[in-house]
Amino acid sequence: MPTSPVWGSRLKTRGLVLDLIRAARTISRIELAASSGLTPPTISEVVRDLMADGLIVEAGRGVSTGGKPRRLLQLNPTARYSVGVQLERNACVIVVVDLAGRQVARTSFRGTAQMPPQQALPFLATQVKALLDEAAVDHERVLGVGLVSHGPQDRPAGVLLTPQPTDEWRDYPVAPRLAEILALPVLLDNDAAAAAIGEYWLGTVDPRSTYGCIYMATGIGGGVVVAGEMYRGSSSNSVEIGHISIDVHGDECPCGNRGCLENYAGPAAVVRQALATSGLAEQLMLDPADTDFLTGFARIAAAANTGNTQARHLIEQSARYLGCAAVTITSLFDLDAIVLAGPSFAVAGSIYQTLIQQEVTRRTFARRAHPVRVVPSASGSDAAAIGGAVLVLHSELTVGRAPTEAAHAL
Amino acid sequence: MPTSPVWGSRLKTRGLVLDLIRAARTISRIELAASSGLTPPTISEVVRDLMADGLIVEAGRGVSTGGKPRRLLQLNPTARYSVGVQLERNACVIVVVDLAGRQVARTSFRGTAQMPPQQALPFLATQVKALLDEAAVDHERVLGVGLVSHGPQDRPAGVLLTPQPTDEWRDYPVAPRLAEILALPVLLDNDAAAAAIGEYWLGTVDPRSTYGCIYMATGIGGGVVVAGEMYRGSSSNSVEIGHISIDVHGDECPCGNRGCLENYAGPAAVVRQALATSGLAEQLMLDPADTDFLTGFARIAAAANTGNTQARHLIEQSARYLGCAAVTITSLFDLDAIVLAGPSFAVAGSIYQTLIQQEVTRRTFARRAHPVRVVPSASGSDAAAIGGAVLVLHSELTVGRAPTEAAHAL
Repeated sequence: MPTSPVWGSRLKTRGLVLDLIRAARTISRIELAASSGLTPPTISEVVRDLMADGLIVEAGRGVSTGGKPRRLLQLNPTARYSVGVQLERNACVIVVVDLAGRQVARTSFRGTAQMPPQQALPFLATQVKALLDEAAVDHERVLGVGLVSHGPQDRPAGVLLTPQPTDEWRDYPVAPRLAEILALPVLLDNDAAAAAIGEYWLGTVDPRSTYGCIYMATGIGGGVVVAGEMYRGSSSNSVEIGHISIDVHGDECPCGNRGCLENYAGPAAVVRQALATSGLAEQLMLDPADTDFLTGFARIAAAANTGNTQARHLIEQSARYLGCAAVTITSLFDLDAIVLAGPSFAVAGSIYQTLIQQEVTRRTFARRAHPVRVVPSASGSDAAAIGGAVLVLHSELTVGRAPTEAAHAL
Repeated sequence: MPTSPVWGSRLKTRGLVLDLIRAARTISRIELAASSGLTPPTISEVVRDLMADGLIVEAGRGVSTGGKPRRLLQLNPTARYSVGVQLERNACVIVVVDLAGRQVARTSFRGTAQMPPQQALPFLATQVKALLDEAAVDHERVLGVGLVSHGPQDRPAGVLLTPQPTDEWRDYPVAPRLAEILALPVLLDNDAAAAAIGEYWLGTVDPRSTYGCIYMATGIGGGVVVAGEMYRGSSSNSVEIGHISIDVHGDECPCGNRGCLENYAGPAAVVRQALATSGLAEQLMLDPADTDFLTGFARIAAAANTGNTQARHLIEQSARYLGCAAVTITSLFDLDAIVLAGPSFAVAGSIYQTLIQQEVTRRTFARRAHPVRVVPSASGSDAAAIGGAVLVLHSELTVGRAPTEAAHAL
């Protein structure tokens, strides 16, 4: 990426105009000048450049307000695409989205827990290529890949900092390696943070609001977005909500902390509690040897939804533990809203939403200052993968605000 | 405040240049241009304006690097002053600082817990006036007052949103009323957040870092600063660390949450634990009827420092509970450092620092990404009041970055 101040400023203006067009869907040059604070000549110049690059097109004329009807601009959705890859131990998802953030292709397959990275990354690359071919997307039009996974990460280096799922993954250059195989830029980011910024693009929440996202797949993560900008902290290892303590006297977690939320509320914990509940394991055909907790958890959630009292008790208990952590992030980040995203909210989402909302409404410290809404994700189970793809677009469209210093180009 | 884009932009440039001069202590025009990215003619114009207003002065010449030696600029510390007022139930502190953030006068007195606001605010105003007179500070040079107190607050309205210490305080317009009596602008802000930004000014931490501040007086609060900007969230009611749960099964707190940190680690909790410890209350002459927990707590902390085993156990327990919450804010905000500020860290600060550092180093989720340092405040017991005064300067010097929309002028 060019980094000189001159280019930085031009790219920033370009990104701002593109983001305004995206958010408005259709907009005139005059409205763009008014919304951006830029002069009409600057808008004309930027619009000319964006049209020359094929990123935007004219979309007919607006309603006349007396004078000449204004020509409206909109994104050219098929001008560019991006790919989101969710790397998870139990389930992987790949999506292709267009420039407007709309999903044009999707695939999912068993997770990479059993594969070392040397084997998993070529496999992922094959899947990405096949999906792009299947959707007939020209590789030339693909901006890049958003690879999203658990933390902690060294995001600029494109490296995972934990021995999860196996020792071989720790410190392995996952993003540079995938970039090399695919011949595309690859951005590594946190899955939950990606899901959070994805919701901004998909319009789940007021774009000016401060909101958090609780992302639950096998693990529990989070992200916070302030007026469209992701809260990153020192090293983009923020909002690790699954590993905050909800019980100072609790058991030690492999992460090093005590009483971690994930061990009370996460899918593995709920499956473990179900296995210890007399009769429930047999009834739901839970296999104590199965390490794919997502399947077992989905069965418990489905039973809770259809009135199984024991299953419902376990899901409600998980929801209350999550509610405790939701109150913590609300009181710390002063949130307007919390979005529940990821596959583990897919089945019993309404139980979670109701109980987490109750806890937040009742227990948040500054609840007198403003309400806090708990809402479901717009992208459901695929929130992280869609978020990964959106991150690539976001980084392109708002370049200058959030430079893509971390893109692993060839 | 002028709010037009043209004025906004000029004020922003002016604020940026002032902040660079402040941080550098002495700096040449050429260095200012290099650090700010502004052109030399713009720097010359802004510097001329600031000198005309008496805010900066020339401070001799720098070392020649071959050509003509460069004239150095520095703040004129006596050009402006600001006042910090810490409103606390058990102890109030007022400080006057100069434009460089240096304290020029201080007073403290018993807190306002026993007074309704109708009586307390005129009393505070009298104390402020007396302190300014005593320090021979010209009222014309006083930028304003930073009034800091506990949350939750309606900061723009200058109102406290809780019935603390008594019902009469809730929804009372504390900032507008004090502004009216003093005929000075008054900014209301959170005491812990003020303490946090004060540490930025006083140079406790790297100005580019992401750091948190744990502020402990009678209650426990917090603030997070990212590269010199306070994290505010939706309504400036963020980082309420005293009322996050460290025990999901804990007792209900008057705030509505369960297992709040403050009820385990705060001065009142430690005094309560000491009163329940056989022999300790008598030994330390703790009065069960005394509601000024700061005095009792200071006695316990002093005994812990001088080797009283029972007292040391209580302080260490409080430190471990705080360590648990410190790990939570570190894993959520991805902090580089935590500053311990406020009167309740004054006596046994080194015990707290050591144990909180141990917990953070051992239990923070992303500890492999970067170290997290726990450090004492540069302003000790007066951190909140100094922070309040600094907030007024910060708001003036960085106007445009953080507009003072909340200043309650006449």
